[in-house]
Amino acid sequence: MGSDIDAARIAVRESIDRWIDAVRARDLDAMMNAYADDLVGFDVMPPARHEGRDAWRRVWAGFFENTEGPIDFETSEMRIEAGADLAWCHLLNRVGCTGKDGTRHEALVRATICFRNSDGRWLVAHEHASIPMPMPSPGACESAAQ
Amino acid sequence: MGSDIDAARIAVRESIDRWIDAVRARDLDAMMNAYADDLVGFDVMPPARHEGRDAWRRVWAGFFENTEGPIDFETSEMRIEAGADLAWCHLLNRVGCTGKDGTRHEALVRATICFRNSDGRWLVAHEHASIPMPMPSPGACESAAQ
Repeated sequence: MGSDIDAARIAVRESIDRWIDAVRARDLDAMMNAYADDLVGFDVMPPARHEGRDAWRRVWAGFFENTEGPIDFETSEMRIEAGADLAWCHLLNRVGCTGKDGTRHEALVRATICFRNSDGRWLVAHEHASIPMPMPSPGACESAAQ
Repeated sequence: MGSDIDAARIAVRESIDRWIDAVRARDLDAMMNAYADDLVGFDVMPPARHEGRDAWRRVWAGFFENTEGPIDFETSEMRIEAGADLAWCHLLNRVGCTGKDGTRHEALVRATICFRNSDGRWLVAHEHASIPMPMPSPGACESAAQ
């Protein structure tokens, strides 16, 4: 069992490294290989929730369309917990990118990535990315629900 | 195995229900029963990351100190995935509360809750709560790192 857990931990780490390489390379197909069909994604920006791999693909297609040049990723505080059939990872990502209008964006993004072992492949079934924000105003509810 | 997974799913659901009841009752001790000592928490507001149960307790003590009256929770889109030794749940929470200064706060909060089976008790080892926000400005990095 211990060695299975170690193998799961390594597989999860490799999946994350491949995903980051694919984002840097702006390779949408390679990036999407990480995900299960029934993925539920919570992205940094509204809307609050994306259901399914295709919806998540559209989010990332939009990101690549709206940015240009290098995408910086600097991960820290990564922790992986692996089990027999599920695993998760949480980490911080210092992300830097440049919008098509030339605006530079930088943020410290928290990410939680939940994996499921599907016939020996560790696939991401849930992903939650966010930036902490000050106390929400009464209007936050409406904008988040868009 | 199937019945173990069903039992895990029920235990996770019960833990979440107890946690919500405890928040509504402003019962910090009861709420903290859900968590493992080595919890890593990502809260809605900065700082980006809290390490350990005691740090998380301080976050919630602050929330209770800075609000008064009823705390509204309306959950939706809850999905639980349970395994032999790990489980996770993700959901939306429509949260409403009133600050000590009388300001009403309402928000749609996404939550991802990661559980570990510790000698038969399903404890939260990681929690990520957030509100989606518009594209971060160049200053977001600094405020998030506070």
